[in-house]
Amino acid sequence: MAGSSYLGYRGDDANTDFAEFFDPKMAALPGHIVDALHHGPQADQVLLDFDSAAHLLDDGYHQTENGYGHLRNGGFQVSVRTDMPGVTPQMWDWWFGWHGSDTRRYKLWHPRAHASARWADGNNDGNEDGHYVGRTSLIEEYLGSAYAKAAIRFLPPEQMGLPADRLGDSVAICARLGSSEVPVDIGWFVHQIRPTPDGAEMRSRFWMGGPYVRVRHGNLLANTVVRPVAARQLPDPRDLMVHCAQEMNHLAVFLPALYAKFG
Amino acid sequence: MAGSSYLGYRGDDANTDFAEFFDPKMAALPGHIVDALHHGPQADQVLLDFDSAAHLLDDGYHQTENGYGHLRNGGFQVSVRTDMPGVTPQMWDWWFGWHGSDTRRYKLWHPRAHASARWADGNNDGNEDGHYVGRTSLIEEYLGSAYAKAAIRFLPPEQMGLPADRLGDSVAICARLGSSEVPVDIGWFVHQIRPTPDGAEMRSRFWMGGPYVRVRHGNLLANTVVRPVAARQLPDPRDLMVHCAQEMNHLAVFLPALYAKFG
Repeated sequence: MAGSSYLGYRGDDANTDFAEFFDPKMAALPGHIVDALHHGPQADQVLLDFDSAAHLLDDGYHQTENGYGHLRNGGFQVSVRTDMPGVTPQMWDWWFGWHGSDTRRYKLWHPRAHASARWADGNNDGNEDGHYVGRTSLIEEYLGSAYAKAAIRFLPPEQMGLPADRLGDSVAICARLGSSEVPVDIGWFVHQIRPTPDGAEMRSRFWMGGPYVRVRHGNLLANTVVRPVAARQLPDPRDLMVHCAQEMNHLAVFLPALYAKFG
Repeated sequence: MAGSSYLGYRGDDANTDFAEFFDPKMAALPGHIVDALHHGPQADQVLLDFDSAAHLLDDGYHQTENGYGHLRNGGFQVSVRTDMPGVTPQMWDWWFGWHGSDTRRYKLWHPRAHASARWADGNNDGNEDGHYVGRTSLIEEYLGSAYAKAAIRFLPPEQMGLPADRLGDSVAICARLGSSEVPVDIGWFVHQIRPTPDGAEMRSRFWMGGPYVRVRHGNLLANTVVRPVAARQLPDPRDLMVHCAQEMNHLAVFLPALYAKFG
């Protein structure tokens, strides 16, 4: 299933100057994510609408900062907040431009689930590090027990309705998420990172399935045919919520030190 | 799906003398409900039998005060205990007669899931407030992510096997639960509230699906045809348990103050 990819470091994988940051032990889930798991699926009306993604740029918090729910349109939505003392939004901007050219870097992020990463444009020698918007990251990872071969196409925030002139001190990492094996997209996500008094907080929003499934360069008929098939390939919203909370909390702990060394 | 109904207060919804009690922030689930979620479905033999509802009037506690399980008859059962310091059983008796004539009152109870409430008899001007037994409350609410349009027909406790002369200081709110769109009932519930040294405790019991599904004024054939269809419309027992625990704990916090003002 995972082909030549594998979890963890093997052989001389650790022969890098960043390997000291590879820590297979992950922190406990934050209490607010545990609460969200207990609460189960939420009413669609308390979840952020895809067309209202710009509300992430408002002050304050949404009614659901952590949780998931099934939408009337057949899709689902997942939200996760990650508190990150000592982190700045710019560190995440750097991370997204840095990690994608090297599987060993990608594995730092979620040592229990990340198997492989490379850029679709073939620039994996590090020369194009520092750019991610407009590029497609080809990754292999587990979501729960399901193995996904995904293509993450990073977009300018404007393309998801977040105007650049409203970002202020925050960073918004936006992407179209799809398969790397078939020309089908299955969802969208935003990770908005904004400063807090003691660092930063990330507010992640995913919209998956239903109308968010689309055949790349396809037509309406193709979408209609593909959606029911794609629906069976979607991650469980709970697994996606846990995975996101784990990787973001894990990286946030050593991101300041990693950035100090390589940023 | 939600039609003209919506969650939360909008426009001049807050122009009432009870709006101060509308609090969109809900308390954490009690630990004993979290435990019950972790425990998952229970053996039917440790769940209260529908025909033994009168055991709620015995002293002490049942083997399962919090939990849920699937029954051999095809239905499921859900139990929830809510500890309510400072509350009296009579306050709940008052609440059930007071909230049903006004959506804005109903929304106080579960601000993340309650969308609409009115009495089927059309007496929604407040003149019939104070009565609920024998009346049918038409509500719209989310259970998890599922939107339900329900008809709750409140019954004299005798009709569920709880003799009036054994209630003592306790109150038992009993109801047949069904659809407001089709003439189908899908379950029964009791909320028994009894005094404790520091207030009161509510013991909720739901019996849903299986033989508890019945076509109103229908016959055996109708029931046989409808049951498999109705089974697909039933809430997830976990979502029902969480919803009940949330709304009862939420209201219990301000019920004494609400009752002092309007009771």
